[in-house]
Amino acid sequence: MRALKERILSEGKNLGGGILKVDGFINHQVDPALMDACGRELARRFKDVRATKVLTAEISGIAPALITAMCLGLPVVYARKHKPITMPDQVFLTLSPSHTKGRTVELIVSPEYLADGERVLIIDDFLASGATILGLVRLAQTAGAELVGIGTLIEKRFEGGRGVLADLGIQIESLACIISMEDEQIIFEDDQA
Amino acid sequence: MRALKERILSEGKNLGGGILKVDGFINHQVDPALMDACGRELARRFKDVRATKVLTAEISGIAPALITAMCLGLPVVYARKHKPITMPDQVFLTLSPSHTKGRTVELIVSPEYLADGERVLIIDDFLASGATILGLVRLAQTAGAELVGIGTLIEKRFEGGRGVLADLGIQIESLACIISMEDEQIIFEDDQA
Repeated sequence: MRALKERILSEGKNLGGGILKVDGFINHQVDPALMDACGRELARRFKDVRATKVLTAEISGIAPALITAMCLGLPVVYARKHKPITMPDQVFLTLSPSHTKGRTVELIVSPEYLADGERVLIIDDFLASGATILGLVRLAQTAGAELVGIGTLIEKRFEGGRGVLADLGIQIESLACIISMEDEQIIFEDDQA
Repeated sequence: MRALKERILSEGKNLGGGILKVDGFINHQVDPALMDACGRELARRFKDVRATKVLTAEISGIAPALITAMCLGLPVVYARKHKPITMPDQVFLTLSPSHTKGRTVELIVSPEYLADGERVLIIDDFLASGATILGLVRLAQTAGAELVGIGTLIEKRFEGGRGVLADLGIQIESLACIISMEDEQIIFEDDQA
């Protein structure tokens, strides 16, 4: 998606070590117009998968997932990383290693909002190693739900997440796919010779 | 706002002790259409305050703040509770007691995205004791920004937050104002005899 790629090139910062700083428009300061455009594009790509629910992980997945869900007319559930007191004692919980945090985080969903038979579309900001998204996949599977698609804003193809998720046999979309961040550059898939 | 109040009455649960469970449509599962309506209504109420930025706190404030900011054509910044590696070492940080979590949380904003001279509109899901919103106020003031309004989805008037914030002398709006949750009831301000 051109608008997102242009924004990454103009405002994103390659901090080295595969770390892309996009906190000026995605995950600290958010550009609502860009999120709106991205959410709409993801909804367009998944309009035929007959999802019944959008699932994301707090925090940075919420903005794009909200717009995608709005366009598809679906509720969105965000997996919590801490169990709030309003949640029942029995929950779906999985552990997910976070590379950027350097530790393991919990992903928690209440059985009230993820049910057997649902058709789940996962939306998140990044597809990198795939660890967080695999956590969401496990939560959905534990609930007895069916995965129908995975959509992300930015994919770091060189971190291998797409390969990890390929066995699911479902549609995977990313709006900006980065194939290399070496030498301080940001190279998108389309730019490949 | 009638749609929000009706939803609170039909799906919200008064868990006692002033705790209102609205995680079926606001803070775990989210109803995007309701958030869209709420965000638009907050934008309408603050259309004349000439805000230059919307400020919220992760996590549950993100959805309404995103829509409000979109309608006003502004960027939205959400204060982080953990400093990510993409953030510079020097940040604006304040401590905020969280009643529902029973501990103190950090609220962190990068100086890159909150600057001297900005006109800040704070949007969050709840106005209860006012502790979180006061934390956001301190962050904005530390940055040299001017507060121009505070908007929330649900106010628990009986927890006193509005009084705490009154000294700021700015417009404070809540879309559903609860004045009592005693005896398992949920009584809105408008319903008062």
